[in-house]
Amino acid sequence: MPAPERRFVITFGCPDRTGIVARIASFLADAGGWIVEAAYHTDPDRGWFFTRQEVRADSLPFGVDELRARFGDIARELGAVTDWRVTDTGERRRVVILVSKESHCLYDLLGRVASGELDVDVSAVIGNHAGLADITKAHGIPFHHVPFPTADPEGRQAAFAQLRQLVDRHDPHAVVLARFMQVLPPELCADWAGRALNIHHSFLPSFVGARPYHQAHRRGVKLVGATCHYVTADLDAGPIIEQDVIRVSHGDSIGDMVRKGRDIEKVVLARGLRWHLEDRVLVHGNQTVIF
Amino acid sequence: MPAPERRFVITFGCPDRTGIVARIASFLADAGGWIVEAAYHTDPDRGWFFTRQEVRADSLPFGVDELRARFGDIARELGAVTDWRVTDTGERRRVVILVSKESHCLYDLLGRVASGELDVDVSAVIGNHAGLADITKAHGIPFHHVPFPTADPEGRQAAFAQLRQLVDRHDPHAVVLARFMQVLPPELCADWAGRALNIHHSFLPSFVGARPYHQAHRRGVKLVGATCHYVTADLDAGPIIEQDVIRVSHGDSIGDMVRKGRDIEKVVLARGLRWHLEDRVLVHGNQTVIF
Amino acid sequence: MPAPERRFVITFGCPDRTGIVARIASFLADAGGWIVEAAYHTDPDRGWFFTRQEVRADSLPFGVDELRARFGDIARELGAVTDWRVTDTGERRRVVILVSKESHCLYDLLGRVASGELDVDVSAVIGNHAGLADITKAHGIPFHHVPFPTADPEGRQAAFAQLRQLVDRHDPHAVVLARFMQVLPPELCADWAGRALNIHHSFLPSFVGARPYHQAHRRGVKLVGATCHYVTADLDAGPIIEQDVIRVSHGDSIGDMVRKGRDIEKVVLARGLRWHLEDRVLVHGNQTVIF
Amino acid sequence: MPAPERRFVITFGCPDRTGIVARIASFLADAGGWIVEAAYHTDPDRGWFFTRQEVRADSLPFGVDELRARFGDIARELGAVTDWRVTDTGERRRVVILVSKESHCLYDLLGRVASGELDVDVSAVIGNHAGLADITKAHGIPFHHVPFPTADPEGRQAAFAQLRQLVDRHDPHAVVLARFMQVLPPELCADWAGRALNIHHSFLPSFVGARPYHQAHRRGVKLVGATCHYVTADLDAGPIIEQDVIRVSHGDSIGDMVRKGRDIEKVVLARGLRWHLEDRVLVHGNQTVIF
Repeated sequence: MPAPERRFVITFGCPDRTGIVARIASFLADAGGWIVEAAYHTDPDRGWFFTRQEVRADSLPFGVDELRARFGDIARELGAVTDWRVTDTGERRRVVILVSKESHCLYDLLGRVASGELDVDVSAVIGNHAGLADITKAHGIPFHHVPFPTADPEGRQAAFAQLRQLVDRHDPHAVVLARFMQVLPPELCADWAGRALNIHHSFLPSFVGARPYHQAHRRGVKLVGATCHYVTADLDAGPIIEQDVIRVSHGDSIGDMVRKGRDIEKVVLARGLRWHLEDRVLVHGNQTVIF
Repeated sequence: MPAPERRFVITFGCPDRTGIVARIASFLADAGGWIVEAAYHTDPDRGWFFTRQEVRADSLPFGVDELRARFGDIARELGAVTDWRVTDTGERRRVVILVSKESHCLYDLLGRVASGELDVDVSAVIGNHAGLADITKAHGIPFHHVPFPTADPEGRQAAFAQLRQLVDRHDPHAVVLARFMQVLPPELCADWAGRALNIHHSFLPSFVGARPYHQAHRRGVKLVGATCHYVTADLDAGPIIEQDVIRVSHGDSIGDMVRKGRDIEKVVLARGLRWHLEDRVLVHGNQTVIF
Repeated sequence: MPAPERRFVITFGCPDRTGIVARIASFLADAGGWIVEAAYHTDPDRGWFFTRQEVRADSLPFGVDELRARFGDIARELGAVTDWRVTDTGERRRVVILVSKESHCLYDLLGRVASGELDVDVSAVIGNHAGLADITKAHGIPFHHVPFPTADPEGRQAAFAQLRQLVDRHDPHAVVLARFMQVLPPELCADWAGRALNIHHSFLPSFVGARPYHQAHRRGVKLVGATCHYVTADLDAGPIIEQDVIRVSHGDSIGDMVRKGRDIEKVVLARGLRWHLEDRVLVHGNQTVIF
Repeated sequence: MPAPERRFVITFGCPDRTGIVARIASFLADAGGWIVEAAYHTDPDRGWFFTRQEVRADSLPFGVDELRARFGDIARELGAVTDWRVTDTGERRRVVILVSKESHCLYDLLGRVASGELDVDVSAVIGNHAGLADITKAHGIPFHHVPFPTADPEGRQAAFAQLRQLVDRHDPHAVVLARFMQVLPPELCADWAGRALNIHHSFLPSFVGARPYHQAHRRGVKLVGATCHYVTADLDAGPIIEQDVIRVSHGDSIGDMVRKGRDIEKVVLARGLRWHLEDRVLVHGNQTVIF
């Protein structure tokens, strides 16, 4: 695979008004910027404007820091309350993956990384069980085993402290809860806000919490699903990035549902992570815009 | 379209044990019955056996009443607690449709009936608004307008009594709530149990109750759906017959979700109704087996 | 339903270069234009740039003719070879529908028009059989019966001439072949280029031509589909606007496939027509960009 | 995961007539067989009857060889031309996987095997490139590198001979062409008939042969797909086991289509392989019945 062309990515949100597109486009055009991809969205209910622009790095006469500085001026000009970011696809994304016993999401992500489809550094995999150490190490990735004792509040607190340290040392662009099964404490949710992605094994808001396939089987639904969302202190209630479903029938046992659901969990998590790392997800309130 | 071959349909459920298939199959074989379609299912959790058999009517030396009598003996032989039915596709199905203002489900059903795809008699359409009278009458079907006064309990009770009378005079195989928008009182749910089908405009159990698309928009889901279920006294909680979903995005307003959702409501209701009328839906507890 | 806000829609395509977005956005911003929706796409293989902009009509100090004149200047400035259009959502769209015996697509479109979901004038329905006259007239729409004699070239030529006259008198924005089943002669394809939409009852390019469900059944496929495309002189080979599929199984007869496929044909045609009438479909070569 | 209950699986096909179900069911009932799953299908066009029965091994007073012998008598009794098989889920399935450079299908299968979801022995992986040796060996599975020289007929013939030897020594239940990219010679197709499964990266019959995503991109389709089918001497034309699709848009480059398509290839192959190994696929002519 040839190295993809280096690009700068601008994401920007502000209260809607006329002239925003013109201002940003003129700024980029004046600097010679070659826009490779551009997307706009206006939320009329909230009166909020969103945009994402991808510019060829080599079309600009300056680097990402200068672009950031100059775009900051534009942003300030466009409003007092804005939400923006300028990133460089040349900076390699770092990802830390949290796992438990279930291997399918980890396997899937490692496969995508190994093939080059997902072009990131997996800095570490951290498990509250040790079972996925071997496959992790076979990919040359460090694995840390951090047990979370079930009925020992202090022990759990210590485990979360260790987890935080193991994650934060990499300053990752994404902390992926790949069926991690431990509820993060509020302060970790806050610190990793907008960077921690969870895959929940149901079509939210159906079947929040534990054993969603059991809940689904009991309710007799005809489709099961999975949801990739940002982690917030409110369990399974963070902004949704991606969802998908698969058909089940009366012939499917809970075990069959679990098996079929896994295939959905894998792709939903992989899509959500890709979009997150490509700065395609803009969060506003509890909703996401996916460009 | 040639008239479909006349068939007798047997549905049967009982506690699972060995020899049930053999007993039923031998009974049919001994009588010369040509089985056109046969389906079996065992629910290991509940220890319950389900089957549905379609037999060519002209392959048996007797009619449906005699088949019902003889199969009754088999059923009694197979257990004290059984749940069975023998029906004749030669008996034309009667359907009563309840509507409000939204036309899409009614239009869809009328189109299927007019083309012969859904080979039933629509005995009547009953609306709590009069807007769908014209399209109903254009199909030669009686339309009854029964207003349901919002804040008048006695008036509502009288309206439900009138509704019941208008429905029951046709002794319909199905009472279809095609976006009817009125919650049936418990006694009607009981009397029409297993015959009243509702289309709910969400993927249940997500977004029970009123304005599900508004709820979905607020939660920021990436798919919206629809659910066809039997009506029970517990709102939107009856046995699910069919569900489906369609993708939405941040670009979709509530109005867009409503519009996209309609296409799902129509097909989900049409599928559910077809299966119900073909005796393909076996209810056990709050779950359905769809053969 | 409240009347939707009146908008002007600009679609534009030209060889890609820097500064296009800025030029168009500045032009609109300088005129005070409030952009409600904006989409961009660059096809790197063909080096072609596409955009579609929706502007609130009441935000501009002039009307659609003046906008068209002024935007024409911009377009000429941006290149010698461009492809653009400026339309006014205030101008009601006119549609002529061509049918044969199959009713499902016509029914579906009439239902959408009757409910206001599809806010267009159906100027006429023209059938090579008369069977759909009643349902058409029940909606207050003129129906014309133009028989196409099978083995009579001159008779067919006369029929096509009559068809053309009946269509062209309305100068429709869309000529919809809603399972019309007659192959249009090349000169009609040319005259109606970019306005004639067909629904083909297969997932193209699989099963071109006659009886695609029979072909699909013979091949043993596990999904059947439908394709909405612009009509060109090359049978079933025009630019694809929309496609979708539905699952089938060994248990489905050809008749079942036909029935299931209809539900896909209806929605695929309805989506394609909506996008066409909203100027969301930009054709380039044999491909479409759907904004 | 607890070891699944051991079962005997009977598949049977013959010209349709009355009494087949009764004969088989009575035979099993008389022997005390506990039928866990039973499925029937009649193809009215071909007048062919199909069934699959799963019986609890511990419910029968004899083993699989005796069952096979006894069922053979029943089969002969039921017709001169029958097609049947009796297998034992207690016999571990052996699979040989053929690969080239693309890793996604192999990774996916190895992950399913490692987690126990796919409870089989992967006897060997054989690649015409060596790139997937490491991940194979990390799972404790032998990897053989057999290069196929492109423009050297004799060299290729020798390579196929070596391939055959490496495969046949394991007498595998399935030979999986997991994006193998080499066309098998007719004699290998014949020898492995009904055991060699291919994943083709298009929705067949669209885009037979090389570079289907390039073909799909050129045609401008709105969905891309994948097809798992039995390998026959006729390229990409064997009986289809499973297919699925994923939506693409004008915004997707060929590279994006390849990436999205991979997720479909993986699940379609995994489903097809599972059904094959569970004896759920009955082939008749060029079609499959999936029980």
